[in-house]
Amino acid sequence: MAGTLHGVGLGPGDPDLLTVKAVKAVQSAPVIAYFCKRGRRGHARTIVDSWLKPEREELALAYPVTVEIPFADPRYNAALSGFYAESAERIARELEAGRDVALLCEGDPLFYGSFMHLYVRLKDRFRVSIVPGVTGMSGCWTAAGAPITWGDDVLTVLPGTLPRDQLAAKLAATDAAVIMKLGRNFPKVREALAEAGLTDRAIYVERGSMAEEKVLPLRDKRDDEAPYFSMILVPGQGRRP
Amino acid sequence: MAGTLHGVGLGPGDPDLLTVKAVKAVQSAPVIAYFCKRGRRGHARTIVDSWLKPEREELALAYPVTVEIPFADPRYNAALSGFYAESAERIARELEAGRDVALLCEGDPLFYGSFMHLYVRLKDRFRVSIVPGVTGMSGCWTAAGAPITWGDDVLTVLPGTLPRDQLAAKLAATDAAVIMKLGRNFPKVREALAEAGLTDRAIYVERGSMAEEKVLPLRDKRDDEAPYFSMILVPGQGRRP
Repeated sequence: MAGTLHGVGLGPGDPDLLTVKAVKAVQSAPVIAYFCKRGRRGHARTIVDSWLKPEREELALAYPVTVEIPFADPRYNAALSGFYAESAERIARELEAGRDVALLCEGDPLFYGSFMHLYVRLKDRFRVSIVPGVTGMSGCWTAAGAPITWGDDVLTVLPGTLPRDQLAAKLAATDAAVIMKLGRNFPKVREALAEAGLTDRAIYVERGSMAEEKVLPLRDKRDDEAPYFSMILVPGQGRRP
Repeated sequence: MAGTLHGVGLGPGDPDLLTVKAVKAVQSAPVIAYFCKRGRRGHARTIVDSWLKPEREELALAYPVTVEIPFADPRYNAALSGFYAESAERIARELEAGRDVALLCEGDPLFYGSFMHLYVRLKDRFRVSIVPGVTGMSGCWTAAGAPITWGDDVLTVLPGTLPRDQLAAKLAATDAAVIMKLGRNFPKVREALAEAGLTDRAIYVERGSMAEEKVLPLRDKRDDEAPYFSMILVPGQGRRP
């Protein structure tokens, strides 16, 4: 009988922010799979370190490209597509051999992220069970102690990759916002926030929920350096009886 | 020495979707506080039932109004405001007596919800520690097996309480959407989705992650009944290498 693929949300980084269900999945699956950069252990694998049973096998899925080829280049898509197909087959071989596989997912498995690309390739061939997780953005607004939405607030989640004008327009039209994928997009995102008149309400958060977390009002951030997984929050101001 | 207030996110309903940190907070606090309707135990209290230590004390915070007074009536706001102030004082008395209080929060404490109203009233007087949780919407898209955002998708979270025209305009302008607070707003939300041409992409989810969960394509839902905590998902269609 074929094994089950478990897509396991790990939460924002603190190992104690795994759910009880995630810990059970990680501890009962004989095979632990995770995405990583070549030559690195990867963040997901690091988060579960203290939870793993010694007898598990590991399947490291190392990305062929990260920043070498630009997003817009068709070769980027082709390289990733081949990688996901090959990763799905590596997992399929374990499942066909009757072994359950826990595929580790930072944050929540179905909210952005790489799991979904294997999920669509495997879900019609094997049993799949998904364990939702605390999102990275929840980790960030918790680190900031900033309620993100009140009452009837509309929340818009924006990738920093969008063009500046689109960002500014969408920011101006929402009550609350989370801007993800900063990295090299950070200067552009800062300009879009200024254009929308939101600089003074914006909070910059790096590594929310982790030991090295950093929270500061955006107006106090002087440099242009932002890791890819940092975020900007614009908390809502809705109904507060 | 004063106690600490723990705002504890419980996730979408399945007791195994509490985080390890949430279980620790719930089991170590001598006082467990939770919101409920008068004469009911409340959903939050039910979720933690299997995790509670027998020796804890309980502080039930029973809402004075639910549906009797309309939202727009100033008396609604006044009644809630008095209730939150009084609830904050009940918790403050425990904290002043040196007892930690775990205030239970469905979903994530800083994403909508009642915790935030006590948080703003108590955070400058006492130590507060917040445990983020899996949101109800994660529970719903997991129940539906529906990846909600891909690549550079924009996600908009909309309360069903918004006017129909605003809902339709915001739905037409986003890549992915979650519509919460359905209840009596459901027929209006359905019309807004039709106006935005999204009926065929929409998924209706009731009680995601719970035993009685219900998932169906919106076009297959014939009646107009939707509990307040049901949701509609419009999954994104972004980049899929």
